[in-house]
Formats: sequence, structure tokens, C-alpha cells
Amino acid sequence: MRPLIFVTNDDGISSKGIRSLVSVAEEFGEVCIIAPDKPQSGMGHAITVNGILRLDKSRLFEGLNAYTCSGTPVDCVKLGIYELLKRKPDLILSGINHGENSSTNVLYSGTMSAAVEGAMENIPSVGFSLCDHSSEADFSGAQHVARQVIAAMLKNTFPANVCINVNVPKLPPDQIKGIRVARQAHAFWEDRFDKRFDQFGKPYYWLTGEFMNQNPSADTDLQAVEDGYASLVPTQFDMTAYEVMNEFKKWNL
Amino acid sequence: MRPLIFVTNDDGISSKGIRSLVSVAEEFGEVCIIAPDKPQSGMGHAITVNGILRLDKSRLFEGLNAYTCSGTPVDCVKLGIYELLKRKPDLILSGINHGENSSTNVLYSGTMSAAVEGAMENIPSVGFSLCDHSSEADFSGAQHVARQVIAAMLKNTFPANVCINVNVPKLPPDQIKGIRVARQAHAFWEDRFDKRFDQFGKPYYWLTGEFMNQNPSADTDLQAVEDGYASLVPTQFDMTAYEVMNEFKKWNL
Repeated sequence: MRPLIFVTNDDGISSKGIRSLVSVAEEFGEVCIIAPDKPQSGMGHAITVNGILRLDKSRLFEGLNAYTCSGTPVDCVKLGIYELLKRKPDLILSGINHGENSSTNVLYSGTMSAAVEGAMENIPSVGFSLCDHSSEADFSGAQHVARQVIAAMLKNTFPANVCINVNVPKLPPDQIKGIRVARQAHAFWEDRFDKRFDQFGKPYYWLTGEFMNQNPSADTDLQAVEDGYASLVPTQFDMTAYEVMNEFKKWNL
Repeated sequence: MRPLIFVTNDDGISSKGIRSLVSVAEEFGEVCIIAPDKPQSGMGHAITVNGILRLDKSRLFEGLNAYTCSGTPVDCVKLGIYELLKRKPDLILSGINHGENSSTNVLYSGTMSAAVEGAMENIPSVGFSLCDHSSEADFSGAQHVARQVIAAMLKNTFPANVCINVNVPKLPPDQIKGIRVARQAHAFWEDRFDKRFDQFGKPYYWLTGEFMNQNPSADTDLQAVEDGYASLVPTQFDMTAYEVMNEFKKWNL
């Protein structure tokens, strides 16, 4: 039996990134797609608990089992596993995201949250992101990397309770130096709100900002990408900060 | 100068939980509130990047600097730090949530994501949750615990790059046995979609499910709450799975 590969993303079903990923996935197995019916960037690990979900057959992927979902990327994964698929998928692929999801962006990223949800379901899962926000970005380098990563995921035993976060530099395939296993860089967004006024004179805000790298260090994902490598960060859903548990115990609460 | 305490939540500004938290916070410092204008449960670390944000003065908290925000809990924190407040707050308090946020629920929880965002901004931050979903829940036990935790946060040096996740059992104050520092339990949602049909015969889904504890173990937050303690889990935003980095290096990608 060919591997069953579930594909989702956060840019929505009509994005070039998911088409690029599906065409690679088809080389490896039977592909099923559930993707948001509209862009869901920045949705993080959001799920739809106070509203209903729609799941509609999509005609965008001829011959494939493809659906749009009215919810978030994590909703797509849950609907795939618990409603649509007859068996547990062998792989979950998310992306290819239009834009970088390295460092702390893993927390905001719908692309990566879909992969984290896969890890919680004990399914080998990966989020792919290309460091190019353009809707017409060239995904050939990211496809080249995805092909290697998917082959390795199908060949090797995948560790429990983790997924992987792969970021690919904006380079042609032959200029990507390789894939470097890295850690999540410590960075944050120095936000800025662009305050504007509507036609009634009432203020509204656009969230904008600058990404601040707090530790430029060779072993981070940000540095790997800057050095021309794709970064691969093993990503876990256990957020316990074990090393400071004793500090809090000393508070004697 | 009295400490500046920023308060938010995910149940929305009109919930009983945030009123209960604000009344405790006022004992300790100057309180500023930005909370969602509608329920934002399950929004995780979502931010509003494809739409605008509104920030409106609220009259629900007389004499306090209180605002509603059209966005998510993380949007509220960002607006507080980068737009509204004149200085960095000394504490960020999120909650008190109507319902438990222990174990892997930390990933789905808007309450906890607000606290995690605070940690990324290097501000001592905490999310409080009461194990009672009712809108009319009795918050006196959770207030009792919050009072102790806030006092300790103001007295002690808070570790960098973490926040804390506090879950309080549904018990009267005098029956809560104490506060136990714990780790995030390994659990997941065995989801089930309740499929219904609208007035046009078109299907829609409600997400529902059962929470499955994968490791009933004395040192977890789930067990602490079950034993009648409030749980306190130090929670970090570095999601790197360091202990499996070498496994992936062996893939020789």
C-alpha cells in the first residue's frame, strides 16, 4: 500500500505554495488535501470552538481527494484525522508557506501549528516554509528540499512527540547548500501599530513590526537560512520549562 | 511607584473571570485592561495580520484604564505594550479562564498564549484558569491562589524566557491544598465531529471530543489538580526538541 499523505497549509487552498507541495507529495504516495478556504496566516494553534466548520470538495486538484475547510490549519488536521480519512495518514505535510517561519514565528504560524497538531496525534509531520512572501514566489528550491525531507521521513523511524520545522532560503535549488539541523533562534517582534482613521474618523490599527534576533548564533535556524542552508528544527509540544522548575519550588507557595 | 499590572483574557471583557482577576490585581498595583470584545477561546497564539484591529474604551471597569480589542488575546498584549501603555508593565495577568488549561491545552489556549507573548517580551506573565466552564463559576478559590502567585511574582526574581500556567481546581478556597509546581501532562484530544445539516441540507460540523491523559503521573499538572492542588507549570516559548536533534542529524540530509 502506498503511503497516505495528508497535506494542508495556512495560505489557503489556492496558493502556489500548497500546489508546489502537493506535486512533490504525489511522487511518494496517495495524497489527500484539506486546506483553508481563505488565508489563515498568523492563526497559530487556533481551533474553532465557538462556531461551526464547513468542509467542501475542491476542484482545484484534479483527480485528488481535496477539500476546503472554513476553519484554521489545526481544524483542517483534526477534520482530516477524525472525519475524512479512512485511516491514519503516514505523513502530514504543511505548506509550503509563503514566508519564513523560523525562530519564535513557530508560535504564530498556522503552517507549523498544523504540524504540531500532527505530532500530538503521533503522526510524522513537517511544516515547510520558503523565505519569500510573494504570491508568485519560485518554489523550486523548497520543492527540492521537501523531496529530500519526505524521502527521509518515509525511510527513517520518526521520533515520538515532535514534528519538524523546515525553512528554505530564497535561492535556486543548486545554490541551497544543504539541510542543517538547528535550534529555534531566540528572537521577538518589536511591534509597531500603524494607526489610521476610517471614513468616520474612528481609529484602527494594522499590526506591523521588525523581527529582532536576540542571539545570532551558528546553531540557530535563522543563521542556517542566512548561510544558505535549509534549516530543520525538531519541534515539540511539551512547553514545560524543566530547568526552572526548582526556581519556582523555592518560592514556597 | 506602584507596579503597573496589565490584565487580559480570552473569554472576553464582560466575563466574570476577568472581573475576578482585576479585583485581585487592584490590591497590588495600577491596573490596565485590554480584553477581547467577544469570546476568543481556542484562539491559541493567533494574531491579526490580514485585518485591522479596533481598540475602544470600555466602561465596564469604573475608574480603571480599560479597553476592548477586536482581536485575539495576543493582539491585546501587543496593543498594550506597543500602543497603549506609557511604560512596560511589571506584570501581565491573563484570565481567570472559565475552564481548565492544563496539559497540552496550553497550545490551544488564548489565555495562556497571552502569557507566552508576555514571556517573549520579557515581562513576568501568568495565565490563570479555573477548572469550571460555567459563566457563573465561583472564582473565590482561584482568587485566593492568584493573590498568592501575584505576591510571589512581585517579591521574587522571575526567570527569563518563561511564563507560568496556573490551573485551579473547582474547590472552595479552604479546600485547595496548596500550589504544586508541575510539568505539562502528556495528553491529547480524541476529537469527534458532530455532523449536522443546515436548512439547505448542507453539512456542517461542531468540534467536540474527549481529553485523553497519556501519562497519569504524580508530577503533572493534571494530577496536581486532581489531587486538590493548584498546578503551576513554568512554560517556555522555545519549542526546540533538543534531545532528538542528534537523531535527525543521523538522517544525513
